[in-house]
Amino acid sequence: MRLVRYGDAGSERPGLIDDDGVLRDLSAHVADIDGAHIGPESIAKLAAIDTGSLPKVDRSPRLGPCVGGVGKFLCIGLNYSDHAAETGATVPPEPVLFTKATSAIIGPDDTVRLPRGSKKSDWEVELGIVIGSAAKYVDEADAERHIAGYCVINDISEREYQLERHGTWDKGKGCDTFGPIGPWLVTRDDVTDPANLSMWLDVNGKRYQDGSTATMVYKPAFLVSYLSQFMTLHPGDVISTGTPPGVGMGQSPQVFLKDGDVMTLGIEGLGEQRQAVVADR
Amino acid sequence: MRLVRYGDAGSERPGLIDDDGVLRDLSAHVADIDGAHIGPESIAKLAAIDTGSLPKVDRSPRLGPCVGGVGKFLCIGLNYSDHAAETGATVPPEPVLFTKATSAIIGPDDTVRLPRGSKKSDWEVELGIVIGSAAKYVDEADAERHIAGYCVINDISEREYQLERHGTWDKGKGCDTFGPIGPWLVTRDDVTDPANLSMWLDVNGKRYQDGSTATMVYKPAFLVSYLSQFMTLHPGDVISTGTPPGVGMGQSPQVFLKDGDVMTLGIEGLGEQRQAVVADR
Repeated sequence: MRLVRYGDAGSERPGLIDDDGVLRDLSAHVADIDGAHIGPESIAKLAAIDTGSLPKVDRSPRLGPCVGGVGKFLCIGLNYSDHAAETGATVPPEPVLFTKATSAIIGPDDTVRLPRGSKKSDWEVELGIVIGSAAKYVDEADAERHIAGYCVINDISEREYQLERHGTWDKGKGCDTFGPIGPWLVTRDDVTDPANLSMWLDVNGKRYQDGSTATMVYKPAFLVSYLSQFMTLHPGDVISTGTPPGVGMGQSPQVFLKDGDVMTLGIEGLGEQRQAVVADR
Repeated sequence: MRLVRYGDAGSERPGLIDDDGVLRDLSAHVADIDGAHIGPESIAKLAAIDTGSLPKVDRSPRLGPCVGGVGKFLCIGLNYSDHAAETGATVPPEPVLFTKATSAIIGPDDTVRLPRGSKKSDWEVELGIVIGSAAKYVDEADAERHIAGYCVINDISEREYQLERHGTWDKGKGCDTFGPIGPWLVTRDDVTDPANLSMWLDVNGKRYQDGSTATMVYKPAFLVSYLSQFMTLHPGDVISTGTPPGVGMGQSPQVFLKDGDVMTLGIEGLGEQRQAVVADR
């Protein structure tokens, strides 16, 4: 299933995209696509619905983040060996964890705002994992069943704030609008191999990232197991799993986002995002 | 006012501690002590209540975290010059930001659980700021009015995970139960000078931390202003502002938490916490 949340920001309704690409409303069956409604039983109930019976949504509404009420927005850094190389880092012997503020989350096609004075805002197309059921001290072999599904994430990053302004990376990762999530939460059963999906990102139509999750170092099931040793992963938590090469910081000369730019990005089977960039003044 | 949340974890009710130290129920006036109910108008309405008219809570219930539904749990590192010195670091030219997982939040007297295999779990008594109204690009002079109040926080930290396990500090900061908050949310009007409060922390009755917020480098109003340049601070967000000297990592030889330990800590006018320590097996 391709689950979505549609409507105005803060009052999104649940829906799904049917096999013909038509948006249908799920409000009669579920209150929201969020941690309380994406556990294995909830997903099974939704999967049993005859989609043809669901009301079509005729207009083309805004899509919100494909999961609501995210509690933790955890991110893995340097998880593609070739991306690590382009940033001058090496792949660490265990996953690098950092955090994005949940207040950074926006819909897949919402406007991205550069903070006042930002000079080094950058893009990162990433595979997102959405947790469906609580995971603590989970073995890798049991980890996958805690995953509700997958989605596209743009892990937008202000490199000066991240790397030159003291403290952890979080300062450059959590700016408002720096976390577009969606368009779809594609349930796990519909993603044959999350570690073999092509992914791409263009800025103003120029392709900068053209990779595949096949070159991820630490795969989704391992990451869920790994993180669950440190903290409980709760339903609705999101894990962004790192980016392939081609970020702006890795260009020669470096390229960063500016007012008026447009980012388009996508992952095979998980849909596409499009963000206009506006600089805060 | 000293606002509290009392009752079982996950179903706390709002209350206050009156001038005689008696817990009284606020359920008839407010749904919860959370971001939706601690803005300036809400606080003013609560302050206008005749506390003598509120039902007394006769038993001594568990206290929960003094603010519910925390969206962001932001933390400032190395914000006391003498603590920076004991950890071998220097005070940075601007605040160091890191993040605690909101799933780490517990009540002030709840049990602290050491993750399986943890060898270097440590304590940090800190002054917490609770945001009352949204703050973005706020000047320092205007910052205080966005603060609902203050509270005690124990920023429990696994030093091996934080410093030796790759990635940002977040890995050692966000473990389950590593964020006791409370007992009280003391509203801003009842804290004459948040930058002049004595603070202390004992382990098994031995005093390790004995400091004052007077030696903080970056003060609350500055921190709210500073962070608001990077991201919107929303009502209910919490900022933990750093710890004075005396953490376990700074002892010679180093001392870390173990199964059976008891931490007691407090800040002048903001109340006390007590946590038993249990090691996960």
